[in-house]
Amino acid sequence: MKSIDINCDCGESYGNWHMGADTDIIPGITTANVACGFHAGDPVTMQRTIEIARSSNTVVGAHPGLPDLLGFGRRRIEISPEEAYSYVIYQAGALRAMLDSNDMPLHHVKPHGALYLMLNDNFVLARSVVRAIQELCQHPLLYWPASTEGLALPEVALDAGVDVVFEVYFDLDYDSNGRLVLQREKSALDLVSISERVKLFLRSSEVVTVDGGNLNINARSICIHGDGPNARELLEVIKMTLNEEGCSIRAASHQEAGTDTTA
Amino acid sequence: MKSIDINCDCGESYGNWHMGADTDIIPGITTANVACGFHAGDPVTMQRTIEIARSSNTVVGAHPGLPDLLGFGRRRIEISPEEAYSYVIYQAGALRAMLDSNDMPLHHVKPHGALYLMLNDNFVLARSVVRAIQELCQHPLLYWPASTEGLALPEVALDAGVDVVFEVYFDLDYDSNGRLVLQREKSALDLVSISERVKLFLRSSEVVTVDGGNLNINARSICIHGDGPNARELLEVIKMTLNEEGCSIRAASHQEAGTDTTA
Amino acid sequence: MKSIDINCDCGESYGNWHMGADTDIIPGITTANVACGFHAGDPVTMQRTIEIARSSNTVVGAHPGLPDLLGFGRRRIEISPEEAYSYVIYQAGALRAMLDSNDMPLHHVKPHGALYLMLNDNFVLARSVVRAIQELCQHPLLYWPASTEGLALPEVALDAGVDVVFEVYFDLDYDSNGRLVLQREKSALDLVSISERVKLFLRSSEVVTVDGGNLNINARSICIHGDGPNARELLEVIKMTLNEEGCSIRAASHQEAGTDTTA
Amino acid sequence: MKSIDINCDCGESYGNWHMGADTDIIPGITTANVACGFHAGDPVTMQRTIEIARSSNTVVGAHPGLPDLLGFGRRRIEISPEEAYSYVIYQAGALRAMLDSNDMPLHHVKPHGALYLMLNDNFVLARSVVRAIQELCQHPLLYWPASTEGLALPEVALDAGVDVVFEVYFDLDYDSNGRLVLQREKSALDLVSISERVKLFLRSSEVVTVDGGNLNINARSICIHGDGPNARELLEVIKMTLNEEGCSIRAASHQEAGTDTTA
Repeated sequence: MKSIDINCDCGESYGNWHMGADTDIIPGITTANVACGFHAGDPVTMQRTIEIARSSNTVVGAHPGLPDLLGFGRRRIEISPEEAYSYVIYQAGALRAMLDSNDMPLHHVKPHGALYLMLNDNFVLARSVVRAIQELCQHPLLYWPASTEGLALPEVALDAGVDVVFEVYFDLDYDSNGRLVLQREKSALDLVSISERVKLFLRSSEVVTVDGGNLNINARSICIHGDGPNARELLEVIKMTLNEEGCSIRAASHQEAGTDTTA
Repeated sequence: MKSIDINCDCGESYGNWHMGADTDIIPGITTANVACGFHAGDPVTMQRTIEIARSSNTVVGAHPGLPDLLGFGRRRIEISPEEAYSYVIYQAGALRAMLDSNDMPLHHVKPHGALYLMLNDNFVLARSVVRAIQELCQHPLLYWPASTEGLALPEVALDAGVDVVFEVYFDLDYDSNGRLVLQREKSALDLVSISERVKLFLRSSEVVTVDGGNLNINARSICIHGDGPNARELLEVIKMTLNEEGCSIRAASHQEAGTDTTA
Repeated sequence: MKSIDINCDCGESYGNWHMGADTDIIPGITTANVACGFHAGDPVTMQRTIEIARSSNTVVGAHPGLPDLLGFGRRRIEISPEEAYSYVIYQAGALRAMLDSNDMPLHHVKPHGALYLMLNDNFVLARSVVRAIQELCQHPLLYWPASTEGLALPEVALDAGVDVVFEVYFDLDYDSNGRLVLQREKSALDLVSISERVKLFLRSSEVVTVDGGNLNINARSICIHGDGPNARELLEVIKMTLNEEGCSIRAASHQEAGTDTTA
Repeated sequence: MKSIDINCDCGESYGNWHMGADTDIIPGITTANVACGFHAGDPVTMQRTIEIARSSNTVVGAHPGLPDLLGFGRRRIEISPEEAYSYVIYQAGALRAMLDSNDMPLHHVKPHGALYLMLNDNFVLARSVVRAIQELCQHPLLYWPASTEGLALPEVALDAGVDVVFEVYFDLDYDSNGRLVLQREKSALDLVSISERVKLFLRSSEVVTVDGGNLNINARSICIHGDGPNARELLEVIKMTLNEEGCSIRAASHQEAGTDTTA
């Protein structure tokens, strides 16, 4: 693997409540997924997040969620396809207008939390969201966790000609089906083991599962979490390992063109 | 006066709560100001409102408000210039993305309720909002009630080269300074007197004030209210009077070009 | 049947958005279920609804819902037992404080919409809500649609010694399992057929199902809907029929004591 | 001064967003002002905050705010007296129901942020809020910053027979009129100078103003802030100084009775 993208969910503060370490993390990644006000984020936070991204040459995508600040978008809500479509257009559209003002494109869309979970399984909702992505992005692009299973949104997206950037996670565990094992509370991560995981993946496209097996993962981006207790160290160790292995860091859409970003 | 625009605030339902008579009103006007989710409106309502406007060839502008559903955007909230800017970009940007999907431009911006009142007086906020309008619209356009007084937002807009469409109201009264006399509860309006007001305005550009005087008003649009008890009859009588007086009805931005709309 | 209670969901306006016909309906019923701000209602609306109830001697219970104004509490949200418990205490507690100020007790609790649906099936959530009801009411009382099926909340409530007032509906249809057939849009109801349903129920405790069968329903209250197009006429015809059949109208908790209310 | 109360604003997290250091601070104070969901706090946070207070024998009062999560209740909103009244009853009533379930009384009411600022000046709103406090508390009690100026809410409260606990601040500065100098960002405080301020106050009831003068302050409680960078150290140094000066720490309402709390 010659180059890889690094993405992170950003802009998840809300008013006076802070979350994540955007100022530290954004300059070190290639791609920021910015919350749009439904599960987190607010207009001022979005604006400030975009400004950090712009000054560090990080590309920005939308991270739309369910309308549930109280549950941080992590509780399933029974929404209709019409609601799914218009919630994504509304959120990503608001973000895109802010990006326009900064001469930045809307790079991609990556659904958040329970909306993401619902779009793994629900093909009807998935079709609504793919239509929204096609209408929002000049070069429609979806970010999604890589998996060995057939998942609704990526399948519908690829069928519709929408490019999908699959992601690998080094700060979460995988079960034997390639599904991520989500943890309620983030604990500090062992940096040596993270570095080993990165090396394994770069050399063989494999990740280790919780039951000790190896799993093939096809991914063009590494997704990291910015709200863990040692998020900055995690990012540093990943980047150092990529460097040692001779893998450069570039935003997914730029990989073909071969131009390095400044991250 | 050869032609005039008719605009109305629309899309002010919220979820299961209905307000206004959009289905009846929108096909009869040239210009719809659509609420964007902060004081009223929600993504599904916005989408449906745009669809009615598209099918009746009505142009659509953003009607952004303060973040106060509970107060319907009618209570002043002490916001900063940064908040004013990003609230307008967010709301109008979300609407613009929905318009894009329908191949419709964002025609103009018209602030709602207490935000409108604050922008009559506060030049610092006004500069923030004008910047937002310039970034949002290809041909920046502001709608604002005509007045004899110097008002912050129109003054800042005109100084910045933003076109302002001033409006006349026939369903509200004017005081002797040309300020509108707002009523808490809308009562049914006397249609004969409305027709007289329209004629006076078309012939002399004058409106009658509450204390019996006449006031010169320079306006390119008529603003009507869609939530009064006889809103449809009001619209009909205005259009009939315009017709009798030989004044055609065209969206403000189209007046120069001389092309009739279908309204 | 000598006497029966009539209850209705009330206070479902929100800020400037009106819903229902509280001023007309509340004086004609014995028991009002008042929305508490999560799916509908707001502090001022609650206060005003209580004042109407007080002046017409109508008893008031809490009608708590999921935190989803946008979905009117009608979309399932995956909440935890801790959330269910504290959402009910919060909402009903706010209402109870307003009732206290008016020297009125919190008469009962009746969950709304999707929360009601979830509590039909989920015993863990049901236990949380029963605990909340026990802590909130001096004489814990739950209102619930009568059914032939074993439902979670009523079962847990009865096991815990909480009295349950089962309800019969004449403005909704029943399926053959005794479950209500919910309609998205309320249509005007045939008043003659409503009167027939009331008579059948009073004489035999039976309702007719959508497939033409008869079903035994054990109910102490009639639940009517205040937001249908002919809600007032519906209420009038039910009351007239009860009167013709010699059945008096009393709040559920007063039936034993035998004291008539003024409804 | 033989004894003094220490109070702190608590429960200001919202869903997944954390604020303050409740677990550390609450066991060390006598009186907690708990946010009620309008500017901060949510039902689960309120419940958990009460449980910490109960287990550390800390008394709990309501800290109601304006309905503005986005602005953390720190932006003035033009509300009516009816809104002020019902917002306070709603919020404090919800909290009181949770306290009831824990066999704890609602000890006092202390308005938050912009609502507090508005109640310094607006006598009409003040009368609404005093009425709410009288209806909410068995022994109506208001907490308010001490000042040399005549302020609306304390004056109206005292006239109505509501007891007012005036507070002194050692982590904020005073201007020469006795008004607190609010800072946007909290910086770490010099603990030695804090200790000096405490001693001066205990010996002479005086505080130093920003322009170097001394001001007489009549206060029965010390208000500390739990969200500063060294909040715990601040609390420790205040308690140590009180101890050195022979002043015990008791909740305001318990001072007369002379019973020590466990704080």
